[in-house]
Amino acid sequence: MKALIVHAHPEPQSFTTSMKDTARRVLEAQGYDTVVSDLYAQQFNPVASASDFGSRKRDDYLVYALEQRNGFETSSLAPDIAEEVDKLLAADLLVLNFPFYWFSMPAILKGWIDRVFLSGPLYGGVRFYDKGGLRGRKAFVTATLGGRPHMFGPKAIHGEINDMLRHLLRGTLGYVGYDVLEPFYAYHVPYLPEDERRKIMDDFETALRGLDTRPALSFPSLDNFDGELFPLDHLAVAK
Amino acid sequence: MKALIVHAHPEPQSFTTSMKDTARRVLEAQGYDTVVSDLYAQQFNPVASASDFGSRKRDDYLVYALEQRNGFETSSLAPDIAEEVDKLLAADLLVLNFPFYWFSMPAILKGWIDRVFLSGPLYGGVRFYDKGGLRGRKAFVTATLGGRPHMFGPKAIHGEINDMLRHLLRGTLGYVGYDVLEPFYAYHVPYLPEDERRKIMDDFETALRGLDTRPALSFPSLDNFDGELFPLDHLAVAK
Repeated sequence: MKALIVHAHPEPQSFTTSMKDTARRVLEAQGYDTVVSDLYAQQFNPVASASDFGSRKRDDYLVYALEQRNGFETSSLAPDIAEEVDKLLAADLLVLNFPFYWFSMPAILKGWIDRVFLSGPLYGGVRFYDKGGLRGRKAFVTATLGGRPHMFGPKAIHGEINDMLRHLLRGTLGYVGYDVLEPFYAYHVPYLPEDERRKIMDDFETALRGLDTRPALSFPSLDNFDGELFPLDHLAVAK
Repeated sequence: MKALIVHAHPEPQSFTTSMKDTARRVLEAQGYDTVVSDLYAQQFNPVASASDFGSRKRDDYLVYALEQRNGFETSSLAPDIAEEVDKLLAADLLVLNFPFYWFSMPAILKGWIDRVFLSGPLYGGVRFYDKGGLRGRKAFVTATLGGRPHMFGPKAIHGEINDMLRHLLRGTLGYVGYDVLEPFYAYHVPYLPEDERRKIMDDFETALRGLDTRPALSFPSLDNFDGELFPLDHLAVAK
């Protein structure tokens, strides 16, 4: 089994960076062949642009998804993208490890998705959700944040935490077919004393050892929609 | 009244780019003093990092929000950030205009938020939502996407479209205090014939002329939570 850990934190001494190291160690101890993309260390360019394509299908007008498909088919993607695509397509397990920036990912990780999650091999037409290109694989979001657990939940100030990450959990990882495991959230990290941080890291290790049985989030099945994506039976649609 | 339009599309001939031009023209015709940040044209750097700060509060360890506050107070933010902060703080109306990339913004715009939405003047401690630093101002999200209207809604394949953008509408714009106007979504744009695109642009003009009475989304009030952000009365909490 192969794992890809994509890590995005600008401070090498941070707790989030330690989580990346813990994830690598624990996954390797479980027999995963593990690769890390440390986006800040790589100085990864997150800006999707025309220069991502060595040869263009249409030179006069950029349709990014069209050029992604063409670039993949003709092996003419920019080398920094092609390298990440190879890692992604080889991985049975994808771990995204990052600090919350505005209830989402830091831009460097958002741009990794924009540029590496290719139209074509990952999705296209009605190949998404449970028909997505990466179905059968697992994705695990592991994130740190300043907020405390009581700030999230049905009656809490920010509502459900997974709802804030819906664009990532469902709209991105679920969309391309992953089994999206229940995320691991390290709450309030910047404000915690050392012993409480250590407790969170222990919980994280336990979570990493239990990935085989960790519950996955549920998303709609395309079987419940027609070819134009109108619902066949609204009762069968996942919330 | 001043407006800032932040635009993020890599193709200058795109419909999204035309929307930016329409927004500028219509807002100016209504008397707005209008400034545009065209992030691709500016080659805006979206990666939050230590080099965003001319002088550091802590040289040994990067706490990004801490350095934002210090950088703002001591006028030592990187010039490209300081310029955007000045535009943002001058604007009564913020328009974010972009194509959907993974049910969210392109990374170049996400990074504009990461770097320009400063801890300190925009939020801090329990100054957020209706106590946020930009309360009393308006924000308007105007976006294009490939999906069709029937793909969004309570029984639809992707659920509610505003729920996908929750991290932006509530977790970012609402968080810093904006009145977040109901977004304008231009559906299915890449696949539409010219007459249908023109109809959407007409609807967009109408929307821009009606901003004064356009409904705003509702978010929680901090008045319903205590100083530690526990709910005072769960019945009063917005969904």
